Amino acid sequence: MTTTDLIIIGAGPGGYRAAEYAAKQGLKVAVFEGDEVGGTCLNVGCIPTKTYVHAASFEEARERLLQVVPQLRQGVEGILSNPNITLVREKARFVDSETKMIPVKGLDDPRLVDSTGLLALETLPKRLCIIGAGVIGMEFASAFQSFGSEVTVIEFLKECLPALDSDIAKRLRKTLEKKGITFKMGAGVKSLTPALSEGEGGTNVVYEQKGKEETIEADVVLMATGRKPRTEGLNLEAVGITLARNGSIPVDENFQLSTLDSQLSSVYAIGDVNGKQMLAHAAEMQAIRAVNHILGKKDNIRFDIMPAAIFTTPEAACVGASEDQLKEQGVEFECRKAFYRANGKALAMNEPEGLLKLFSEPNAGKILGCHVFGAHSADLAQEASVLMCMGTTVEQLRDMVHIHPTLSELLLAAAEA
Amino acid sequence: MTTTDLIIIGAGPGGYRAAEYAAKQGLKVAVFEGDEVGGTCLNVGCIPTKTYVHAASFEEARERLLQVVPQLRQGVEGILSNPNITLVREKARFVDSETKMIPVKGLDDPRLVDSTGLLALETLPKRLCIIGAGVIGMEFASAFQSFGSEVTVIEFLKECLPALDSDIAKRLRKTLEKKGITFKMGAGVKSLTPALSEGEGGTNVVYEQKGKEETIEADVVLMATGRKPRTEGLNLEAVGITLARNGSIPVDENFQLSTLDSQLSSVYAIGDVNGKQMLAHAAEMQAIRAVNHILGKKDNIRFDIMPAAIFTTPEAACVGASEDQLKEQGVEFECRKAFYRANGKALAMNEPEGLLKLFSEPNAGKILGCHVFGAHSADLAQEASVLMCMGTTVEQLRDMVHIHPTLSELLLAAAEA
Repeated sequence: MTTTDLIIIGAGPGGYRAAEYAAKQGLKVAVFEGDEVGGTCLNVGCIPTKTYVHAASFEEARERLLQVVPQLRQGVEGILSNPNITLVREKARFVDSETKMIPVKGLDDPRLVDSTGLLALETLPKRLCIIGAGVIGMEFASAFQSFGSEVTVIEFLKECLPALDSDIAKRLRKTLEKKGITFKMGAGVKSLTPALSEGEGGTNVVYEQKGKEETIEADVVLMATGRKPRTEGLNLEAVGITLARNGSIPVDENFQLSTLDSQLSSVYAIGDVNGKQMLAHAAEMQAIRAVNHILGKKDNIRFDIMPAAIFTTPEAACVGASEDQLKEQGVEFECRKAFYRANGKALAMNEPEGLLKLFSEPNAGKILGCHVFGAHSADLAQEASVLMCMGTTVEQLRDMVHIHPTLSELLLAAAEA
Repeated sequence: MTTTDLIIIGAGPGGYRAAEYAAKQGLKVAVFEGDEVGGTCLNVGCIPTKTYVHAASFEEARERLLQVVPQLRQGVEGILSNPNITLVREKARFVDSETKMIPVKGLDDPRLVDSTGLLALETLPKRLCIIGAGVIGMEFASAFQSFGSEVTVIEFLKECLPALDSDIAKRLRKTLEKKGITFKMGAGVKSLTPALSEGEGGTNVVYEQKGKEETIEADVVLMATGRKPRTEGLNLEAVGITLARNGSIPVDENFQLSTLDSQLSSVYAIGDVNGKQMLAHAAEMQAIRAVNHILGKKDNIRFDIMPAAIFTTPEAACVGASEDQLKEQGVEFECRKAFYRANGKALAMNEPEGLLKLFSEPNAGKILGCHVFGAHSADLAQEASVLMCMGTTVEQLRDMVHIHPTLSELLLAAAEA
């Protein structure tokens, strides 16, 4: 008889990382996965999108997707081939997430797809309508526009990418507008109906903007209004797990189930399923924290310092508070800016569009946040992120050498601004 | 009468940065510059090279160069237009550097150019021979090979890029070899002579490798055997400044002249001219240190943590000690590796070539160095660099969230290796 110390349901970034780390610590682990390993991120999320973002054409994107995903999946299977891990290819998942559909008429329209459906398309749509200007919507808008699609994005809110500093988000949107993407902001989608009048046979997307009803016709409509925890139909209530309103599993700071039932105290929920920070790298770190808690080990993972990136072209990224959030919180802060246009490397790269905002406590104090759009911005937010983890002040940053000519000099320029 | 607190000779990165910083601190500054402002870096160094590296064709590179350099020069002129700064357009320079020529026969060959000459070429050479596999040689080799030139690099040492970890340097060279660049390592150039036999009229470069004399013919020969301080003919000895053997001006840790003559105690030498760290970003930080010393201010600039990058394709970068240096020093250390091939973003970008090596004190202790080649490696070395400035350990790095999917995950992967 095999003893199992830890059962993991789902082999997404949280699941396989937990398995890898627990096995390394000597635990015997069983992983249940009914689908391909790698989860949303690897199979239909981050990795496929980034492959699209970096491809020169739709054909190249399709071709490369078929190489990259299996190669990375093999990598995950390699991780799970550790003798301390047993991979059970059976459906027992309650981790992961799925597309959140907004209630509009015509959800059964055959031209309506979610991100998984969009990635499965074998021909480039001439006219692509994207509902939602969040991360998924913006990344696909950027990629498909560059492939040659006519892209329209319809967003209910006033600005795209709500996690991003609104100034940065607006400038990024304007930059993408200049490239040819049409944005309908503050617009609510009402219905999807077949466009009978046209020979090409598109779908009419009806939306309301400023009290007026408008229609655009599209060949493909992408629903990109966010993702929700995939917990339905698992009958979790029967074992005493009460789901939150959005379908997520409530957990404490160690990702252990918040429940009074002591039988469930050995259950942890990490990744999209707990609805906390629906990011692959958050899931991975939650995995480490949960396994550490199981082993009684302490760590210093700062879940409050959670960088994120949006791989549009140019890309955007952020860590910590935005200007809007700092104002809302009523804290005193300094905001320093650096423009890509004044950076030598940005000009040499022909990437002059971009702005970095660095927030700190008064008097060049501790870094509180960094929001940025422009080339390599994910790397800049990452540097700001590790600086925040170390409690670095803007004054200390000023004394740190930055390689010339690189985009990282923008951080130094902001510190000195 | 205007009072001047600080006279700066030369408006390179060290000079203009010193002027900017001193003026901000309230000093009255005069800057003497006989050439264009911006120094070697902006006019014939880092910036032009990077423009070539990022261009898709030789024509695009030429065209963009004519836009980028004047635009950045304007930026420097903007900095120098501060009311506390007077720019005197007269030659009084003794800062900066120039190409170091090795003593071979045929130095008057009209096909022999230095990097400034190569940047002035208006037609792409069919066959380019580069003498020296240092930063300049490698960057131009990579750029011109990508434009379509047939490139041969002749290097006296066994490996390219001596500042880089030799393992990383070798792998980078092999990657460039696969792209079509020919390397002649451990080869000493003997002479340059006109190739009379050929109709095209090239130059024969004669070199000795493993005791054998070989010849290759080239249309253009680039001398890229390093740069040396431009101190000749300035009669510095007459005012009591004794130059070092390589022509550099000896300075102390505040970049003040090391001299017994008290009249010279108010003289500082920053940038290439002191021969310490011939990097634009080193010059800028030396500027800050020198001005701080003038003002009696303390800073925490770590000149021992000096990152550097080489913008070949793929690029390479390093900070701190290499494996070779650590072994030489006989210190105990750990070496952790992460391969680009296992990184999701690298695959999505179609940039699977690359390796990161992270060195630390034993038991996942303090980071001692990071040497890397591959996409975005300058940004990775930069992150390692600020972590080193904060005294971060590998154990601390493991707890720091890294954005997925980014190349920065390589640092985390190395920390966990």
